[in-house]
Amino acid sequence: MTHSPSSQHVILTGDRPTGQLHLGHYAGSLRQRVELQALHPQYILIADLQGLTDNGSQPEKIARNVLEVMADYLAVGIDPLRTTICLQSALPALAELTMLYMNIVTVSRVKRNPTVKNEIQQKGFSRSLPTGFLVYPISQAADITAFGADRVPVGDDQLPMIEQTNEIVHKMNSLLDAPVLRHCTALLSATSRLPGIDGAAKMSKSLGNTLTLAASEEEIHRAVSAMYTDPGHLRISDPGKIEGNVVFTYLDAFHPDRDKVAEMKAHYQQGGLGDRQCKNELEECLQTLLAPVRERRQKYIADKEMLMGLLKQGSEKAHQRTQETLVAVKRGLGLPVMF
Amino acid sequence: MTHSPSSQHVILTGDRPTGQLHLGHYAGSLRQRVELQALHPQYILIADLQGLTDNGSQPEKIARNVLEVMADYLAVGIDPLRTTICLQSALPALAELTMLYMNIVTVSRVKRNPTVKNEIQQKGFSRSLPTGFLVYPISQAADITAFGADRVPVGDDQLPMIEQTNEIVHKMNSLLDAPVLRHCTALLSATSRLPGIDGAAKMSKSLGNTLTLAASEEEIHRAVSAMYTDPGHLRISDPGKIEGNVVFTYLDAFHPDRDKVAEMKAHYQQGGLGDRQCKNELEECLQTLLAPVRERRQKYIADKEMLMGLLKQGSEKAHQRTQETLVAVKRGLGLPVMF
Repeated sequence: MTHSPSSQHVILTGDRPTGQLHLGHYAGSLRQRVELQALHPQYILIADLQGLTDNGSQPEKIARNVLEVMADYLAVGIDPLRTTICLQSALPALAELTMLYMNIVTVSRVKRNPTVKNEIQQKGFSRSLPTGFLVYPISQAADITAFGADRVPVGDDQLPMIEQTNEIVHKMNSLLDAPVLRHCTALLSATSRLPGIDGAAKMSKSLGNTLTLAASEEEIHRAVSAMYTDPGHLRISDPGKIEGNVVFTYLDAFHPDRDKVAEMKAHYQQGGLGDRQCKNELEECLQTLLAPVRERRQKYIADKEMLMGLLKQGSEKAHQRTQETLVAVKRGLGLPVMF
Repeated sequence: MTHSPSSQHVILTGDRPTGQLHLGHYAGSLRQRVELQALHPQYILIADLQGLTDNGSQPEKIARNVLEVMADYLAVGIDPLRTTICLQSALPALAELTMLYMNIVTVSRVKRNPTVKNEIQQKGFSRSLPTGFLVYPISQAADITAFGADRVPVGDDQLPMIEQTNEIVHKMNSLLDAPVLRHCTALLSATSRLPGIDGAAKMSKSLGNTLTLAASEEEIHRAVSAMYTDPGHLRISDPGKIEGNVVFTYLDAFHPDRDKVAEMKAHYQQGGLGDRQCKNELEECLQTLLAPVRERRQKYIADKEMLMGLLKQGSEKAHQRTQETLVAVKRGLGLPVMF
């Protein structure tokens, strides 16, 4: 992939390789990427360096999940011929641009970033905030701009990151006296964040409320059986609630037949439709969705050499693209470009 | 230069290319480096990235001084065949190691670094502290360790930087489960910081009290004439004070004949030795020292292609050495090393 014409949209997304990807990733982002790769040049970054920003003392956790995530991508249908999948730590330009951008962003500006503020609180960092974590919005701006991405699929909690990136683009371009870096726009996902199977707002491995893309038939069965519905819906004949009912949230997210889901919802609210029946419908839908994903994933994860080979190919392409941006920035700053 | 045996000392020093080097640099560091290059493998880093940490908005100031500093090095006798002179921004491993080290250093730890604390105060940063400036001790640790340097010539105000580097070495090595990074020791300069010609504690271009290595005969003459002595020494026959008398501080720093300086000091303190005579002695000594430096410098700075060529050669060597360290760190962390 050569430098894309500036009129063409370029997509960048990515994941921190902190564990296997799950249904939440699929609903919120992965299936959108499968669609996007047919329309635009797309880069997907396995963000191992960013994964280390809050796992600095357990690098093995990040290292062992790089190929797990790679296998997840291929299994859901990300096509390495259409999408450039690459590894953050293999791309020196990303670190170099981060170093350059850090000089035009104040510490108080990064600290004011609402996403970072929230995450610092959630993760319970106070005196123990790693410098790398504080800096990661700048590193993300380096990622986005290095690829010349102008469309960035994110959740709405990530909008402040896009804003911060555009601030950096604006400052850098005015320093460089040329529009070297591209402004970017968030592509918000159609599906809002998928809740955990227990009804908690967020799917998270540490809460044990996820369903990975590798989940076995039995795991899917157990997850759906245990799924949170309407605790007030005691008899089948009782009217049931849809709001906060995870089974219906998942049916909305994954069932291919919207009319059928609408019908079920009406029936459930009216009374006369049992939880068991709804769960059966959902389980069938999830089994159908995940069976081929699981099968492909098993095949891929068994061939780590192939996975690493593909990741290397993508990273080489990405290296070329990101070096172009780095060289343009360095030249703009007047720094020698030696090799 | 290949990987030096671990028993061999390796030296790293450097300068931020924020202006031409001056007599203060010469007395405090450059002449020591000329001696050291005969004894040990030595790297000198033109720290343009670090220069940008507090010049983020005026990159042209840093860019235009890179070759000025290179010319200064050659002019004082740094020999590129013995010393590897290299450019920080040309060495991606330094940025990449900085990114990795940032995850094991907390924000509060960097802020506690007394050198950084002082400098933040001196430079009047408060709400406007650039992130890159806060992070620069970690970047310096990346520099030192990337070269495998175990001897670092610094002023005593820089000792906290060495301490912080060794903390990072300790943490990284324990994460890597192998002594991949080398601990380092400060080499304190024999000469303490040279005062400005006006008697101010620090030579600094912004105070206009420096004498650059490129100073003309006339500039040297004027600087010595204007030099601060003992304001109480009104008549030649009066006893004069040596303490705080810049002429004697400079004679101590630069006169080759220590006995003669000792004799002059005794005579001055006793009374009967005039300021003019002392200044003549100093001027002669500085003219002798700087004339060949100035001549060589003029020749070198006229040939920027040659300067850039030498800097490129050094940077290529340095690239190999620093990549070795980066690869060892990545392997130790379990991260893929792709190319």
